[in-house]
Amino acid sequence: MSKSFSFHISANDGRARTGIVSTPKGDIRTPAFMPVGTAATVKAMMPENVRETGADILLGNTYHLMLRPGAERIHNLGGLHKFMNWDRPILTDSGGFQVMSLTDLRKLTEEGVKFRSHIDGSEYNLTPERSMEIQRLLGSDIVMCFDECPALPADRARINESMQLSMRWAQRSRDAFGDRPGYALFGIQQGGLEQDFREESAEALQKIGFDGYAIGGLAVGEGQDAMFGVLDYAPNQLPQDKPRYLMGVGKPDDIVGAVQRGVDMFDCVLPSRSGRTGQALTRFGAVNLRNARHKDDPRPLDENCTCPACSNYSRAYLHHVHKAGEIIGSMLLTWHNLHYYQELMQGLRDAIAAGELDAFVAQFHATRAQGDIDPI
Amino acid sequence: MSKSFSFHISANDGRARTGIVSTPKGDIRTPAFMPVGTAATVKAMMPENVRETGADILLGNTYHLMLRPGAERIHNLGGLHKFMNWDRPILTDSGGFQVMSLTDLRKLTEEGVKFRSHIDGSEYNLTPERSMEIQRLLGSDIVMCFDECPALPADRARINESMQLSMRWAQRSRDAFGDRPGYALFGIQQGGLEQDFREESAEALQKIGFDGYAIGGLAVGEGQDAMFGVLDYAPNQLPQDKPRYLMGVGKPDDIVGAVQRGVDMFDCVLPSRSGRTGQALTRFGAVNLRNARHKDDPRPLDENCTCPACSNYSRAYLHHVHKAGEIIGSMLLTWHNLHYYQELMQGLRDAIAAGELDAFVAQFHATRAQGDIDPI
Repeated sequence: MSKSFSFHISANDGRARTGIVSTPKGDIRTPAFMPVGTAATVKAMMPENVRETGADILLGNTYHLMLRPGAERIHNLGGLHKFMNWDRPILTDSGGFQVMSLTDLRKLTEEGVKFRSHIDGSEYNLTPERSMEIQRLLGSDIVMCFDECPALPADRARINESMQLSMRWAQRSRDAFGDRPGYALFGIQQGGLEQDFREESAEALQKIGFDGYAIGGLAVGEGQDAMFGVLDYAPNQLPQDKPRYLMGVGKPDDIVGAVQRGVDMFDCVLPSRSGRTGQALTRFGAVNLRNARHKDDPRPLDENCTCPACSNYSRAYLHHVHKAGEIIGSMLLTWHNLHYYQELMQGLRDAIAAGELDAFVAQFHATRAQGDIDPI
Repeated sequence: MSKSFSFHISANDGRARTGIVSTPKGDIRTPAFMPVGTAATVKAMMPENVRETGADILLGNTYHLMLRPGAERIHNLGGLHKFMNWDRPILTDSGGFQVMSLTDLRKLTEEGVKFRSHIDGSEYNLTPERSMEIQRLLGSDIVMCFDECPALPADRARINESMQLSMRWAQRSRDAFGDRPGYALFGIQQGGLEQDFREESAEALQKIGFDGYAIGGLAVGEGQDAMFGVLDYAPNQLPQDKPRYLMGVGKPDDIVGAVQRGVDMFDCVLPSRSGRTGQALTRFGAVNLRNARHKDDPRPLDENCTCPACSNYSRAYLHHVHKAGEIIGSMLLTWHNLHYYQELMQGLRDAIAAGELDAFVAQFHATRAQGDIDPI
């Protein structure tokens, strides 16, 4: 394995690209989907099974991990990889977004964010410097800059103010991160839906210099049209030769549209969260296994899928275990959803490599338009 | 595989014996522990992983399955084995015990038990004949007679009355079961803690004739001393050449003592239920992973155990995921507990085969007396 962090693009198709992000802990095939392992576990999955679905990298949440079990504790136990039994790359967010979205008692200043834990009410101070320290203690391979973003819609003044603060925090993050061979620091572009602010943010980040660039501040309520509107220009504002990561996205069709627009990396809780509530994500679209139409259905969720839920169980069984609140319902549907996401990413990578992305995307939408298989 | 049901004892050590119960769906090594798959799932486990722990047979609960998803539905879907993806033997209880212990609105008559579902309040009628029909529809390999038993302590008149009713129901169960090659019907001895009633019950059952004999009405609050008191004579009241099954037992030391007294089969929710609440069952005894003493402990739960929880994770991780309410906590500790139980059963079988059961049991108790490993 390589001892340094690098990105190699092997093929382009329109604005889309496929390649490899290399890290000392393993390669990440792009476009890549990163399952979310919030509290040192991808919920309802054993990590070896997450790997079996095709995941090359997991995402961990700084906010959750700093509160429980704590960054210093994880460091003393040998780091997050060892703690959660995942020896491949891990990307951690900075904690900034989740502090702003998950806590009520918080105070935002130039210095950072003071907040109280949602678990026990104790007080924390999160700054760019402390975020870099926490992500180092966790042993994260791809570290995210500490940033801040407003919920949309927001007025231009608020978006600009927030973007400017995030750019100052990006410089402080870069300074605090220092020189750590084999580990990467990603900057995060902000600017809401405003093209000029996005441009200014991209320029500020490139002036600082990062190993990769995230597109932040999207998937916060603006809708797919508005998001794609930004993605029509935002990736091109960022360096061509560095990975581009669209944070917190998304639904399968969001990902497909973003890959067409030049995005390389994604993360989202949707496949795992949906799996726990009985919603399967399939090539036909979303299928609610709690619906009574499945209760006598001997057919698999998707006869073409090779995941354990589709290989070994009927829709009737999946319906039963979700209605009965059985843990295996969460286990099976999470596995299916992550399997489907990784299969979709592999399809996108193969299509880009073959120069056939348009045909792949047309087939993707045509299959979804068919809808789910008919009730028996 | 054999096409018929049989029991072969390969070695005896004192009153204990080891052997094989053969069924068309596979062999069951005795003494055997059957994990409980109440609602068509061993909670928090994939069935292939239950098999990996060494389980030869699962137990399913007629009461739960008849209410949801329903016996006819499971039959139409191909039977319980296919439904829950377990192709090895399944034993089902008769529903009688759980109707009496889990429902409030019930009416017991000579005919059977009328009750209302705890799920939706709908009315059901469970009789020996209907219990046999349900267990046939499920495709159960080992069918249990429909019976009834009082909670202990109870007076002799109540125990006798209940035992006599269960014996009449045993005859009706036998008549309704009919002749089903490859499938077995077990009778259930009752009689509480009363040796004369136990003797009378055993004689009544043998007169009817069964493929195996359960010892029922224990583990209902009487305590280990009282239970062992009954087990000092009850197994010998039953045929030597048929499997003896102690229903609903138990803790590891209960099982060890019962094996010494000649019991061949066990089931209990303890290892799976404990796993979901953070209690590990180990050679040192019970260990509560929620206890704060584990939060910085890098050591495995049991360094000698080869289960995934002990092989890949620290006590600190197990503590963290149980405190955080993460599903993987239930998955890992259930796996460990079932692994430990099956390892204990293998140890008992090997010891009996070697004629070294006393030494094995002495070591078992000596290890537990040491207590858990010291806090770091």
